[in-house]
Amino acid sequence: MWKERVCIVGAGLMGGSLALALRPFLTHLTLVDTNPATLTAVQTVADVATADLAAGAQSADLIILATPVRAILRLLADLPHLRPDGCLVLDLGSTKAAICRAMAGLPPPFQAIGGHPMCGRETAGFAAATPDLYRGQTFVLCRHGRTTAHVEQMALAVIEAIGARPLFLTADTHDELIAAVSHLPYVVAAALMRTAVEARAWSVSATGFHDTTRLAGSDPQMMLDILLTNRTAVLHQIGEFQKQLGDLKRCLLQNDEAGLVQWLLEAQRQHVRYRAQKIDH
Amino acid sequence: MWKERVCIVGAGLMGGSLALALRPFLTHLTLVDTNPATLTAVQTVADVATADLAAGAQSADLIILATPVRAILRLLADLPHLRPDGCLVLDLGSTKAAICRAMAGLPPPFQAIGGHPMCGRETAGFAAATPDLYRGQTFVLCRHGRTTAHVEQMALAVIEAIGARPLFLTADTHDELIAAVSHLPYVVAAALMRTAVEARAWSVSATGFHDTTRLAGSDPQMMLDILLTNRTAVLHQIGEFQKQLGDLKRCLLQNDEAGLVQWLLEAQRQHVRYRAQKIDH
Repeated sequence: MWKERVCIVGAGLMGGSLALALRPFLTHLTLVDTNPATLTAVQTVADVATADLAAGAQSADLIILATPVRAILRLLADLPHLRPDGCLVLDLGSTKAAICRAMAGLPPPFQAIGGHPMCGRETAGFAAATPDLYRGQTFVLCRHGRTTAHVEQMALAVIEAIGARPLFLTADTHDELIAAVSHLPYVVAAALMRTAVEARAWSVSATGFHDTTRLAGSDPQMMLDILLTNRTAVLHQIGEFQKQLGDLKRCLLQNDEAGLVQWLLEAQRQHVRYRAQKIDH
Repeated sequence: MWKERVCIVGAGLMGGSLALALRPFLTHLTLVDTNPATLTAVQTVADVATADLAAGAQSADLIILATPVRAILRLLADLPHLRPDGCLVLDLGSTKAAICRAMAGLPPPFQAIGGHPMCGRETAGFAAATPDLYRGQTFVLCRHGRTTAHVEQMALAVIEAIGARPLFLTADTHDELIAAVSHLPYVVAAALMRTAVEARAWSVSATGFHDTTRLAGSDPQMMLDILLTNRTAVLHQIGEFQKQLGDLKRCLLQNDEAGLVQWLLEAQRQHVRYRAQKIDH
């Protein structure tokens, strides 16, 4: 049992799952959420469930911010007033550059580190939360000017407790890599869902459509914050994707069978490499 | 046990799974495949396994064509020479307009119907075949000028035996609908896989990337034939998709938050509608 008092702000899928996974290790857990139904639901897991951020923040040694990215930025702006004495801060935000810049700007009593667990579901909210969400998953940590050995050890202890694997990246590297393997796939899935809107077509769809469009169900508020706070990298990846799609379209328009074969084979080859790497890990 | 002698041409994932699922109902099954390793593997399920199409075709009352689409078109061109007396013909090809045109052009002794089971995997070959592949899945049937009540009854008996659900569509309607929910998702998954080729990015990828890129592993030969024989509908769907992606990109470039919210919400709304329809069925 940890002697530190922990406060998780945001009891949705990510924060709620973290609460469930950490609960056995904690002597005191406060959950802060603005949704009254969520506050009722979390009373089984939290010692204190409150909509009052000030109350929650004041009682905690470690505050974990688990809201959409721009809400995290607003919370970080409020923290110096709520906690003039400082505290430990970790977040679960999906983009890291803007958050780590804000964390680095906190006054000296604060010790903070950026975090991003690489898991999720297309269903949001505490009802979808599960203590197993983080088990075996990669949990990215991003150091910055306000990161100390103490807060880093605390973050590693959280990651170990929930069964995840820590991976240190710079915030910029994180945002670039994640734009390619998370934000672009979301954008593509959502654009596909917006294209194939005919119910008659859905009736003949199979697992391919189901899987390819799964991310289109993601929480729009969460995705809005991600796209806006990782705009440059996402725009770059969309541009690269448009080039790939344009190449295929040109081959099809010109009936360029040799070009098509090369394009298709390369996609399959990369897929084989990707799957092999994943199996190795 | 059916008294009809059945010949399946192509013992890959689709033809091989059909052979495994139909086997308990058949008195005589011939499998034709050009791959020597496949011919060895299928000897447990087939009465005759041969690379000789002429031999296989001559001994059958019902021939089921289960190769990539353009190979089916070549087989249909050969059939009148191999079977001047005609026979029943069903196919499993992924596009239907070109195949049904070719079937309708068969001489009168032939009775034929187009078929497309709406299932598959990203792994190809007999090794991936399973008798459960078709269970509970939609199996599209397309009538044309050479379709008789007799061949239609035979196709329905096959579909019932393998546990699938028949759905009659015109070949053109099939190709348009499937372009949206199958061919475009493949193209999008493959373009995504070609965009996100950095192994370092894969190492932080999660289930979202895994699912969205799954179709990129599809057999390139099969996909080549699909794209070339459904070129117009696929090009149309790619164009529609490009418009959706272009709209999102413009919102991002212009920091148009209201436009972004609308775009994201509509994608999620369509996803909810699609999932609700699927659960209803």
